[in-house]
Amino acid sequence: MKLKSTLAASLTALTVAGGAAQAEEFALQSAFPDLGVLGTSVNRFADRTRDVSGGELDFRVYEAGKLAPPLEVLDSVGLGAIDAGWSYAGYWAGKAPAAPLFGSIPFGPDPMKFAAWLYAGGGLEIWRELYEPFNVVPTPCGLLVSEAGGWFNEPIETVEDFQGLNFRIGGLGGKVMEKLGAVPSSLPAGEVYVALETGKLDGTELGYPALDVTTGYQDIVENYYFPGWHQPGGGMELLINKDVWDGMTDGQRATIETVCQSNTAWSLSVGAIQQEEALQKIKDAGVNIRRFPDEVLAALRTATEEVIAEESENDEMFRRAIESYQSFSATYDSYVDLNRIDAPASE
Amino acid sequence: MKLKSTLAASLTALTVAGGAAQAEEFALQSAFPDLGVLGTSVNRFADRTRDVSGGELDFRVYEAGKLAPPLEVLDSVGLGAIDAGWSYAGYWAGKAPAAPLFGSIPFGPDPMKFAAWLYAGGGLEIWRELYEPFNVVPTPCGLLVSEAGGWFNEPIETVEDFQGLNFRIGGLGGKVMEKLGAVPSSLPAGEVYVALETGKLDGTELGYPALDVTTGYQDIVENYYFPGWHQPGGGMELLINKDVWDGMTDGQRATIETVCQSNTAWSLSVGAIQQEEALQKIKDAGVNIRRFPDEVLAALRTATEEVIAEESENDEMFRRAIESYQSFSATYDSYVDLNRIDAPASE
Repeated sequence: MKLKSTLAASLTALTVAGGAAQAEEFALQSAFPDLGVLGTSVNRFADRTRDVSGGELDFRVYEAGKLAPPLEVLDSVGLGAIDAGWSYAGYWAGKAPAAPLFGSIPFGPDPMKFAAWLYAGGGLEIWRELYEPFNVVPTPCGLLVSEAGGWFNEPIETVEDFQGLNFRIGGLGGKVMEKLGAVPSSLPAGEVYVALETGKLDGTELGYPALDVTTGYQDIVENYYFPGWHQPGGGMELLINKDVWDGMTDGQRATIETVCQSNTAWSLSVGAIQQEEALQKIKDAGVNIRRFPDEVLAALRTATEEVIAEESENDEMFRRAIESYQSFSATYDSYVDLNRIDAPASE
Repeated sequence: MKLKSTLAASLTALTVAGGAAQAEEFALQSAFPDLGVLGTSVNRFADRTRDVSGGELDFRVYEAGKLAPPLEVLDSVGLGAIDAGWSYAGYWAGKAPAAPLFGSIPFGPDPMKFAAWLYAGGGLEIWRELYEPFNVVPTPCGLLVSEAGGWFNEPIETVEDFQGLNFRIGGLGGKVMEKLGAVPSSLPAGEVYVALETGKLDGTELGYPALDVTTGYQDIVENYYFPGWHQPGGGMELLINKDVWDGMTDGQRATIETVCQSNTAWSLSVGAIQQEEALQKIKDAGVNIRRFPDEVLAALRTATEEVIAEESENDEMFRRAIESYQSFSATYDSYVDLNRIDAPASE
């Protein structure tokens, strides 16, 4: 029932004979250095897109800073100086207060719930609307397993220990820690090590153990904290210039979205089994693995609710996005609770 | 930085001029009638594969029984009578005792954990090895949110209520219920309604509310139970004849695997928000939504452990597959526990 497999042969013939099936090359500026799964994810996107399109969609990945500085990726893509970007939505808080919600929501969804909100709960539609004034189309392209809570030179024993702490954390997490007295900063990932080493920073969050261990922080910071309250689930964004996007065929856009969705399933899967070995290396370097005291987590949660209320008050898109998430969340949790094997269903 | 967008134009020109970029058509026999998200998933796979390949990979979906009966899909694909199949691994327990583990593991992984085991924990490699003697290559192609525990004419109040119960449940779940006195059967989904109506069955499991509600069981069965202990996470399999698979280009295989992986992210996301409305319809039909008593769940869990021990004893591939899952599971749980926001990390 299979037609004769003439496809490969005829495509080769066409390419050779016609010489016209020209690859379309796009410059893709990453906001990150090529480290750990962040680097792997963007390269996997580019490679897989090339494979699936038979070489016709060719994204050339540039490491952090090659064509545009990390914190200028959104603008550069929108202006068309570069075709595409790879970054983290939390970086754009200053331009669009709702953007961080598409990077991660503190005390919010775990990775699977985050994916469900974006793909089926209305999240992606709002995200695209949010970036439209920047002339950029965002696509979630590789979600991440829950992050670590971060690296701290000194142990965190009470909420007072946040007082005056110079801590690298972007997005909403930064605003939350600021409420508790910390001094947050949004240093790009590539500049953090030196800042820690020179004492400019007292600590930082970056990712999860498999990513963090590649940075060498374990050689210069003593305490590694959990849980990652600021990013229980979150991920990377692929940014494409809107004119470039609109100029693509439906099939090309479908290819990009399909590869990105496969990146999501893949990055969550790979991420899930990479942490243990990395954590062991971090322990072996003499780092203390610690859990935030319950009292500190409770204070962070209260501060998060305050930040969300304030941002909602100040910004219409923020309010719409968080309300979309919250309404999706109630439905989602209801079925998860009903189907819990170990605990009684909530009534 | 984008090359001139000559691609679409030149491809059109090539197709018209050369007339040679021939679509490759494959017959894809589903084991299911076209209902709910099972139908949507296979159609989404076919449509998306067509879109992404520019029409070159053309899977034609046939509903249950059109080219081969549901329980003969594996053999028919292997023999090359049909190119591809869409089914559930639990159906092949009689041919390959380990197969059900790739459909779902009772009291085992939730959907995200199941995906992680298959994609990154070694599961898929063992699955492909298992089907090799059948001349078939399996690919996970749309995982499912946790199922319901099933429909029961009479309430289940104690373990004794399973005694003599004619219940439709396949795979390992059937063996587990058999240990507790039930009489399990593997009726294809399309034949269950009549069997319930005529009293040939006292109950059945099928899927989750959004799928179950499409069957009309709510009109003829009084009790709907949770949790779905037999399938906390699981999914559909795409089966491709091995000669067909080997005859494809790397790019074609990458396309199929990429679309299937995107189907996984998509089906988990869509599944997550479809249940609430469906459950309401089921309630509105007068069905009692119930939870298995803890005592019954504990008995089911013990029986599951016995079944897994026996199957491991009797079958080498079963033992290898379950050991692969268990070793992956320990690593996976360890990070999830460390990063739990609400409960203290286990020490």
